[in-house]
Amino acid sequence: MLSKNRLKLIRKLYQKKFRQENNLFVAEGEKVVYELLDSGWKVYEIYTTNPLQNIPHTLVDRSELKKISNLTSVTTIIGVFHLPKYQFSYVNNGFSIALDSIGDPGNLGTIIRLCDWFGIQNLFCSPNTVDCFNPKVVQSTMGSISRVQCHYVDLFTLIDKCQTEVYATTLDGNSVYKESFPTDGLLLMGSESHGINDELLAKIKNRITIPAHSRNRGAESLNVATATAILLSEIFRSRVY
Amino acid sequence: MLSKNRLKLIRKLYQKKFRQENNLFVAEGEKVVYELLDSGWKVYEIYTTNPLQNIPHTLVDRSELKKISNLTSVTTIIGVFHLPKYQFSYVNNGFSIALDSIGDPGNLGTIIRLCDWFGIQNLFCSPNTVDCFNPKVVQSTMGSISRVQCHYVDLFTLIDKCQTEVYATTLDGNSVYKESFPTDGLLLMGSESHGINDELLAKIKNRITIPAHSRNRGAESLNVATATAILLSEIFRSRVY
Repeated sequence: MLSKNRLKLIRKLYQKKFRQENNLFVAEGEKVVYELLDSGWKVYEIYTTNPLQNIPHTLVDRSELKKISNLTSVTTIIGVFHLPKYQFSYVNNGFSIALDSIGDPGNLGTIIRLCDWFGIQNLFCSPNTVDCFNPKVVQSTMGSISRVQCHYVDLFTLIDKCQTEVYATTLDGNSVYKESFPTDGLLLMGSESHGINDELLAKIKNRITIPAHSRNRGAESLNVATATAILLSEIFRSRVY
Repeated sequence: MLSKNRLKLIRKLYQKKFRQENNLFVAEGEKVVYELLDSGWKVYEIYTTNPLQNIPHTLVDRSELKKISNLTSVTTIIGVFHLPKYQFSYVNNGFSIALDSIGDPGNLGTIIRLCDWFGIQNLFCSPNTVDCFNPKVVQSTMGSISRVQCHYVDLFTLIDKCQTEVYATTLDGNSVYKESFPTDGLLLMGSESHGINDELLAKIKNRITIPAHSRNRGAESLNVATATAILLSEIFRSRVY
C-alpha cells in the first residue's frame, strides 16, 4: 500500500531539484532495479507487484505502481535509491569521455551504456548536461548507470588538469580512421545543436572527425550517441582482443 | 486558420492505419520539413507561424500549431506530405541493412540517419518493424527520411532472393574487427529484446559480433542503433575516402 505522502515524494523525485534535496532517485523496471541491487546500491524503498526474496519491499498493485511510474510501458518494479557519493580524480588511466551540454536524456543514457561496454568507468559532464539520475537517463542506460560514474565538472578545469592527450570531435578535424590513439586520453563530445563551446575548443589541439562516406547525399551530422559509438569503437578496436 | 476537420485529419495521421488510408504523413520542425521540400516531396499542406516564400502554406498561430503537434518542444512549422511510392529490387548494389522487429521509433530514426550518412539508399524492414512514417521516426531522422527508402518486406523472401553475402549480427559470431567485408552485402540486425528470429537466423551462415572490451564489467548488450553505427563504420572504414 502506498501512502499519499510517499506517492508525493516519488513524483517529486522526477525533478532534479527534489532528487538533490532528498538525496534520492528513482529507477524503473526489472533490468535496472536488479542491476542496482546486484551492484550493492543503497535502497530507500522498493515497490513491486511480485514478492521478492531476501529484499525488503512494499507490495503494491498495478494501478498503484502506474501512479508512480514515469514510463508509458508497464513496469512491475520501481526502486527508490540513495544518490551515490562519488570520489573522482582529474588524473585518469585509460580513455575517458567528456560531454559538453548534452540535453537529451536518451542520448546521455546511451552514452553511459557505451562507456560500460567499452570499460570506461568515469564520464565527465558539463554542469548543463542533463542529470544522469533523470528517470529517462536511468532507464535508457539499461543498468549501466550502476557501473559508470558521471561527474558534473567544469570542463575548462578538467582540460587544464588533464595530463593525457585531449581530443575534440569537430566537423573539420582529422579522420578518426587515420588517427592512432594512445592508451590514455580524453575525448570531448559537444551537443548536437551547438557543438563544443568555442572557448573550450580553442584549448584543444587534437581535432577529429568521422568522415562521411563519399556516397552521402546530404546527411550533415550524426546523432551524438552514434558518433560516440563510432569513435569509441575506433579508439578501442586494436585493443578489444 | 485551421478548420476543425483539418485538425481532426492531422491528429489521425499520427496513427499508421490513417496514414495508409489517407496516403499522407506529418513532418514537424524546420529541419525535416525543409529537407522534404528541397528533395521535392509532394506537399499536401504546410502550416507555419512564419510566412514562406514561393511555397503555398497556411499561416497559423502558435496555439493552433501546438494543437496539431506531436512533439513536446515548440515547433514553427508542420508539413503534411503525400506518402511516397517506392520501387525496389531484391538485387542491390553496395551494402544494405535489414531490420527484424525493431519497435522503438527513435532507434529506427537513428538507423535511417546512419544509412544516409554512409550512403545506403535502401533499408529493408520486417513488417512488424515500426512504421518509418511514424512522427517520432520522421523527427529523429533529422531529414534523412527524404533520402533513405524504407521497404517493408518479408525477410525470408529477401534473404532467399538476395544475391550477395548476408551477415547476421549475433552475440556469438566472429569479431567484426577481424572480418573483411565485400563491397556488396546485406547486414541483418535483430530487435534488442529478442534478437533475430531463430528460423531466419538459421538461413544465415555469416554471423558477426561486436566483441566487448576486456574491461567491460557487466554490460550485456548495446543499443541496436549504436551497434548499427559501429558495424557500418567497420564495413565502410576502408572505403570512406
